[in-house]
Amino acid sequence: MASDVSSPIIPAVIIPRVGIGTDVHAFADGVPLWVGGLRWDGYEQGLAGHSDGDVIAHAACNAIFSAAGIGDLGTHFGTDRPEYAGAAGVKLLGEAARIVRAAGFEIGNIAVQVIGVRPRIGSRRQEAEEVLSAAAGAPVSISAATTDGLGMTGRGEGLVGLATALVYPVAPRG
Amino acid sequence: MASDVSSPIIPAVIIPRVGIGTDVHAFADGVPLWVGGLRWDGYEQGLAGHSDGDVIAHAACNAIFSAAGIGDLGTHFGTDRPEYAGAAGVKLLGEAARIVRAAGFEIGNIAVQVIGVRPRIGSRRQEAEEVLSAAAGAPVSISAATTDGLGMTGRGEGLVGLATALVYPVAPRG
Amino acid sequence: MASDVSSPIIPAVIIPRVGIGTDVHAFADGVPLWVGGLRWDGYEQGLAGHSDGDVIAHAACNAIFSAAGIGDLGTHFGTDRPEYAGAAGVKLLGEAARIVRAAGFEIGNIAVQVIGVRPRIGSRRQEAEEVLSAAAGAPVSISAATTDGLGMTGRGEGLVGLATALVYPVAPRG
Ligand SMILES: [Zn+2]
Ligand SMILES: [Zn+2]
Ligand SMILES: [Zn+2]
Repeated sequence: MASDVSSPIIPAVIIPRVGIGTDVHAFADGVPLWVGGLRWDGYEQGLAGHSDGDVIAHAACNAIFSAAGIGDLGTHFGTDRPEYAGAAGVKLLGEAARIVRAAGFEIGNIAVQVIGVRPRIGSRRQEAEEVLSAAAGAPVSISAATTDGLGMTGRGEGLVGLATALVYPVAPRG
Repeated sequence: MASDVSSPIIPAVIIPRVGIGTDVHAFADGVPLWVGGLRWDGYEQGLAGHSDGDVIAHAACNAIFSAAGIGDLGTHFGTDRPEYAGAAGVKLLGEAARIVRAAGFEIGNIAVQVIGVRPRIGSRRQEAEEVLSAAAGAPVSISAATTDGLGMTGRGEGLVGLATALVYPVAPRG
Repeated sequence: MASDVSSPIIPAVIIPRVGIGTDVHAFADGVPLWVGGLRWDGYEQGLAGHSDGDVIAHAACNAIFSAAGIGDLGTHFGTDRPEYAGAAGVKLLGEAARIVRAAGFEIGNIAVQVIGVRPRIGSRRQEAEEVLSAAAGAPVSISAATTDGLGMTGRGEGLVGLATALVYPVAPRG
């Protein structure tokens, strides 16, 4: 009987994995501004790129890919996957989360800091967190910082997304 | 009896959360240099800002807020909270840790890298770690890096703090 | 007997620690290009430095030192340790992992993002991951990003490694 009870009492310790991801896009005239899964009106410039330039969503994708050890945005949504050209960041994040789960991981959380002078993320932070958390199926937290006028973000040339994420292995599904 | 012993053997798996945070301040003449909760004498410039410009302490605050999913420095210590104007970084970190715990999390650890050409953090690293760890009530590790002369930190224009943190949910307190 | 079986069923909750690390080197003429533990032929410039300038390996070292709370590259491989002058990044990572384990930690994983315009990491990502994972004795994931032409990496002046790592305390070894 000792072996009967001792078998399940081995603690099922789960060692999570962390990842990191960045994304940068330049501000450009004549395009809408999409960041954090939201459209921001009232700004003169948007973010350039072959997609919507959503540095928060893209950094989040990179962070979960990094944590799972399965590459990056280029690996999964590169130019050889034309069906993702121009896709919204929130759509990419949903797809990235699906890919990470298919690789055998659950997502614990994703944390993204957006670095730059605009838009004023704080005013719509929770709204953006809800949109991205729904897409990822896991908590996504968003924060913002500036660089005291220094560097390319301080000069307002572009916006940086910087993300970390925690994933943990799960038993394969089905 | 089987149920008696099987009940507690369900592993109480705690899934932690990670966060990320940065802070940047420009060097300026005529102000003292505070970094890592310490005053550094013998340098000609300090860090500018509406506070003491302590990029290590501020990045640490941002990282634990990020991990807990409750915003950032601006959310908690913004201009609508004049009682924090000019507050020391170490005081802000203590208050940030209190806020994170009130939100239902314990802090596992905080790790900060300071990026720039001065001060020479290594010479007083453990002293700074002790001051910040005491403020946070959790281990704070500090490391330093340079950028090989590149970018705004390489040109000595400012100092960057880059932090990650791990927090984990705890049962609400009394 | 109750105590016999209850003793091991206390969940052995392990609280891991996270860390962060960066490394930056400038591109320079006349040196080979080593990144991610691999030599990259066909590029006109390599990375400068007193070592091979491998920003991926160096950022990984910094991240595990940071997570363990034992300083950084300068602490362990500084100019007072001439035996490491010019050492390959992969050798430094192996030594860093040994130091972290000697300090009482196991390495869960290391995740590195390399930021810059060259080399094309994606083409040899898995090869680099294998080399660095073998050196660290733990999974090392590598990803890549660019900065949309902005900043010092966008101008091709240098390459940035940005890493996070998870370590967890283990019982001291014999
Ligand atoms: Zn992007
Ligand atoms: Zn600050
Ligand atoms: Zn280096």
